[in-house]
Amino acid sequence: MSENTSGADGIVLGANQYGKAEVRVVKVTRDSARHDIEDLSVTSQLRGDFAAAHLAGDNGHVVPTDTQKNTVFAFARDGIGSPEQFLLRLSDHFTSSFDWVEGGRWSAESYAWERVQVDGRGHDHSFVRKGQETRTAVVVADGAARHIIAGLTGLTVLKTTESGFAGYPKDRYTTLPETTDRILATDVTARWRYAEGARDLDFNALYADVKGMLLEQFTRGYSSALQATMFDMGHRVLAAHPEIAEIRMSLPNKHHFVVDLSPFDLDNPNEVFLAADRPYGLIEAAVTREGQAEVPQAWEAASAFC
Amino acid sequence: MSENTSGADGIVLGANQYGKAEVRVVKVTRDSARHDIEDLSVTSQLRGDFAAAHLAGDNGHVVPTDTQKNTVFAFARDGIGSPEQFLLRLSDHFTSSFDWVEGGRWSAESYAWERVQVDGRGHDHSFVRKGQETRTAVVVADGAARHIIAGLTGLTVLKTTESGFAGYPKDRYTTLPETTDRILATDVTARWRYAEGARDLDFNALYADVKGMLLEQFTRGYSSALQATMFDMGHRVLAAHPEIAEIRMSLPNKHHFVVDLSPFDLDNPNEVFLAADRPYGLIEAAVTREGQAEVPQAWEAASAFC
Amino acid sequence: MSENTSGADGIVLGANQYGKAEVRVVKVTRDSARHDIEDLSVTSQLRGDFAAAHLAGDNGHVVPTDTQKNTVFAFARDGIGSPEQFLLRLSDHFTSSFDWVEGGRWSAESYAWERVQVDGRGHDHSFVRKGQETRTAVVVADGAARHIIAGLTGLTVLKTTESGFAGYPKDRYTTLPETTDRILATDVTARWRYAEGARDLDFNALYADVKGMLLEQFTRGYSSALQATMFDMGHRVLAAHPEIAEIRMSLPNKHHFVVDLSPFDLDNPNEVFLAADRPYGLIEAAVTREGQAEVPQAWEAASAFC
Amino acid sequence: MSENTSGADGIVLGANQYGKAEVRVVKVTRDSARHDIEDLSVTSQLRGDFAAAHLAGDNGHVVPTDTQKNTVFAFARDGIGSPEQFLLRLSDHFTSSFDWVEGGRWSAESYAWERVQVDGRGHDHSFVRKGQETRTAVVVADGAARHIIAGLTGLTVLKTTESGFAGYPKDRYTTLPETTDRILATDVTARWRYAEGARDLDFNALYADVKGMLLEQFTRGYSSALQATMFDMGHRVLAAHPEIAEIRMSLPNKHHFVVDLSPFDLDNPNEVFLAADRPYGLIEAAVTREGQAEVPQAWEAASAFC
Repeated sequence: MSENTSGADGIVLGANQYGKAEVRVVKVTRDSARHDIEDLSVTSQLRGDFAAAHLAGDNGHVVPTDTQKNTVFAFARDGIGSPEQFLLRLSDHFTSSFDWVEGGRWSAESYAWERVQVDGRGHDHSFVRKGQETRTAVVVADGAARHIIAGLTGLTVLKTTESGFAGYPKDRYTTLPETTDRILATDVTARWRYAEGARDLDFNALYADVKGMLLEQFTRGYSSALQATMFDMGHRVLAAHPEIAEIRMSLPNKHHFVVDLSPFDLDNPNEVFLAADRPYGLIEAAVTREGQAEVPQAWEAASAFC
Repeated sequence: MSENTSGADGIVLGANQYGKAEVRVVKVTRDSARHDIEDLSVTSQLRGDFAAAHLAGDNGHVVPTDTQKNTVFAFARDGIGSPEQFLLRLSDHFTSSFDWVEGGRWSAESYAWERVQVDGRGHDHSFVRKGQETRTAVVVADGAARHIIAGLTGLTVLKTTESGFAGYPKDRYTTLPETTDRILATDVTARWRYAEGARDLDFNALYADVKGMLLEQFTRGYSSALQATMFDMGHRVLAAHPEIAEIRMSLPNKHHFVVDLSPFDLDNPNEVFLAADRPYGLIEAAVTREGQAEVPQAWEAASAFC
Repeated sequence: MSENTSGADGIVLGANQYGKAEVRVVKVTRDSARHDIEDLSVTSQLRGDFAAAHLAGDNGHVVPTDTQKNTVFAFARDGIGSPEQFLLRLSDHFTSSFDWVEGGRWSAESYAWERVQVDGRGHDHSFVRKGQETRTAVVVADGAARHIIAGLTGLTVLKTTESGFAGYPKDRYTTLPETTDRILATDVTARWRYAEGARDLDFNALYADVKGMLLEQFTRGYSSALQATMFDMGHRVLAAHPEIAEIRMSLPNKHHFVVDLSPFDLDNPNEVFLAADRPYGLIEAAVTREGQAEVPQAWEAASAFC
Repeated sequence: MSENTSGADGIVLGANQYGKAEVRVVKVTRDSARHDIEDLSVTSQLRGDFAAAHLAGDNGHVVPTDTQKNTVFAFARDGIGSPEQFLLRLSDHFTSSFDWVEGGRWSAESYAWERVQVDGRGHDHSFVRKGQETRTAVVVADGAARHIIAGLTGLTVLKTTESGFAGYPKDRYTTLPETTDRILATDVTARWRYAEGARDLDFNALYADVKGMLLEQFTRGYSSALQATMFDMGHRVLAAHPEIAEIRMSLPNKHHFVVDLSPFDLDNPNEVFLAADRPYGLIEAAVTREGQAEVPQAWEAASAFC
């Protein structure tokens, strides 16, 4: 982010960014009778020399957030293509159009639609929201560099068996019994960073492939803990895709408690569960490549500011 | 609901009901290596003679909400089958077990899961949440009668063309231009009431069929207004299913505004849209059968109390 | 709602209504340097003869939802006053302006703001959202009649003692222990209907008074069950306000479970609680006046349609 | 976070943490008839040597998240005091109890309650949720170091005048008109980091003071842009509190658009506004002290992981 700028009495402006958030743009491609639809919520944030606006009430550098919104809609006129490509175009535009814009953060959520089935085939112009996970993308511009982080959130998965948790340390506060057969359930949030310099990838195909791998690897084998399953999921993605430099996951352990039916003279051989909301486990890790240069600024900039 | 019960000074207890809400029960069927999963949030509410609890602090009739919760879990031990069948079982239990329970309201949301695809086939015990619409069900017991209302909510659909709105009245406050080509989008909430006396239907198959018809009929033909499309959707369902007495829909008109790109020297032939959140149109109707006895108490009891 | 209208094959249009939902209007009164603010989300829905739109694609009667929105903003130019008064004005306008509009439903949520304290006094034009309960109002027009229902939702209250639950019936599924000292907590949703014919009440003062009474009566005395406390709350309001014909409440019993600390060699004399989210008890009732004519259509129309 | 740990084929575990999220603990202090209440949602996450769990299915180091939850409840038995103090106690416990736990992240949301007013005074044991902002706190442990970050979120403020936006750059995509009189509204999210080494502050009094300053400084003077107002708010806090090293804010610019009433032959001198939801401006910055050592790892660790 931009460097500190001196104010009076040693109190100074630190890192800062600003822009327009959650611009919901729907692009219909109607080159033929068979329409296509792209549905994104785009956020644009600029970084650079904005000290005068903060310190002196001088807005001469403040490209209005309204202008950023207009630019999103105008650029959509030429098509979206993929969220990553669209955000790259926006990043190039703003950093090249205004001298004092040194970088920024452009992000998007996108929502998948399927064609409505009519008479056994997908209809030309009627769609139903798929409604599963939300696809995410962030492009961070830092001068000429571009960090590209793709991801997904809200992909809810569950195994009814082949999961356990045992062998953990016990202390005064431990009451949890060990188990070798439990439900394992989580909402997958994953973000993967493409290797530096990659700009011309087939981001849509990569997205579909990574999603498929995460689902498959969640499924395969016995899970000794969500930590082990999470590492396997990340490992699978990196092993298959040299274009991906690292992947991060945040996985709530959505507890499903076996209900004690014995007061009612009923057994319960792992058939009836209470799905609890809160509290929940929260298991988070990065899977990365040995010896690879770290780019913490990419992740820092990609994350929530405050 | 129960009759008024006299208090002091002419101020009396009116309609009332109570119970346990949002009991999230997950039932795994593991008769073979190929598991099945049912995932419901169940609410149980009793009606009857509970005046003493309200007026005199006497809980002798108050079957605890905790007991109602326990009963949901215990009954799940024998399987769910369909939300409607499960709620019917609960309604029979409570009305037959306690003299003073004259009826009640049992409702459920249910969430669909798909098998994870591994090596080209659906896996035995790993599932991904489908994440589209939520299925709903309500059973209202009124003495021996059972009113069964099935439904869905959150089914988001969109047509990119074959929709317009014109020919409406104009007054001092009208600024809307007419159009014959717009996006039509809505989140379908529908509820249909099965004819009285029906208890042994294949509720799961009926649900799938009604959902498919709603999607198809939303799609077919030109929409002169969401009102016309809504009626067609309901008509289609009733014409195909004599088991269904009536259907109600509540459809937000999710506005997609064509963005004016002319200030940027760009045309916009219905390709770039702003998807607005609020305000939204709200179009609601019942489609029913001529001459059929009305059962307003079913809908009243099925709805939110307050 | 409007009467059934015949379609082909005995399938007919039933009750219906339509309009614009969640028009968020903020009205600033700046007659002097000391500004006032009113902040409402208004929904307008019309009922009447709209069969041609549903059945024949004829929109000649369909006052656009966009026009309804415009009317809300235009009417706000003259001030809001109280939500109830504003909704009454809207109801009179629509039913008198269009022959075929026989009634409707106008509702509002409103949000309270407080003046920011600067130098020990409330500032002239800077406000902070109070953020406690949401005030609600509904006006139902049915020809010349007006049903006025005021209310609030999201008022969260908690007693740390003077609450218990005992003396309830036990059956096979009962595991709950009795208690005479527990936390009682709920989110109050209440709606009260003003007596028919009342249009010139001081709705803002009445609102404040009813809210205060609900808080006080929740507090006073020992609660033998949430049912008893709920009746007392309603009774208090009706005893003090002859202008109010009846009141309905929907009260979740927000369970606070005493945590068993004995495995850690600690006692827990009702000091440490787990606040659970789901499931929760749900206790609902009307308190009304003996011998009073019922107006079920007011409540039915005031509630969610589907 | 913990260092990379080698796996096969150069794919390695990176930063990771795990624990229990959203443990909702309510602590009642009942030393006298006048009870006090503290209401927190606590998250505990451990960092350290957990590679074996990820790579080898060995849970020997995995202090169960269930144990972390139990510890939160057990520690609450001795009182909360302030969120910051409570999180510090937890951090000391976990890092001292398990050799391989090198640090972690403990965070809390807390919710304020007020005494119900009865007969003109605050009641002994009945409370109403204040319902305004949510207080936040994070303690990051990194070996012996403790980074303490306090904050708030959801404090909604609005000025009806003394705000404008002008003097900004124009380009092809600019359509926004300049204004010197508009509504300025935002939901304040702020987080401030206490100077390193501070552990014995009166965190509750500091919180109240900072909140008051943020409200006052939002109010004072003419706002040339939200950026300038944001800097002033941060500057005020740092100037008054040497204990605070830096403050970060994330402020949505909640647009209130003056409704054009001219089609209805009405003027609108900034009295009737449409409050829009999305998109919104998003203005974010840190205010810090010149020459002060930066501790990016504190903010990084305090933020969401993925």
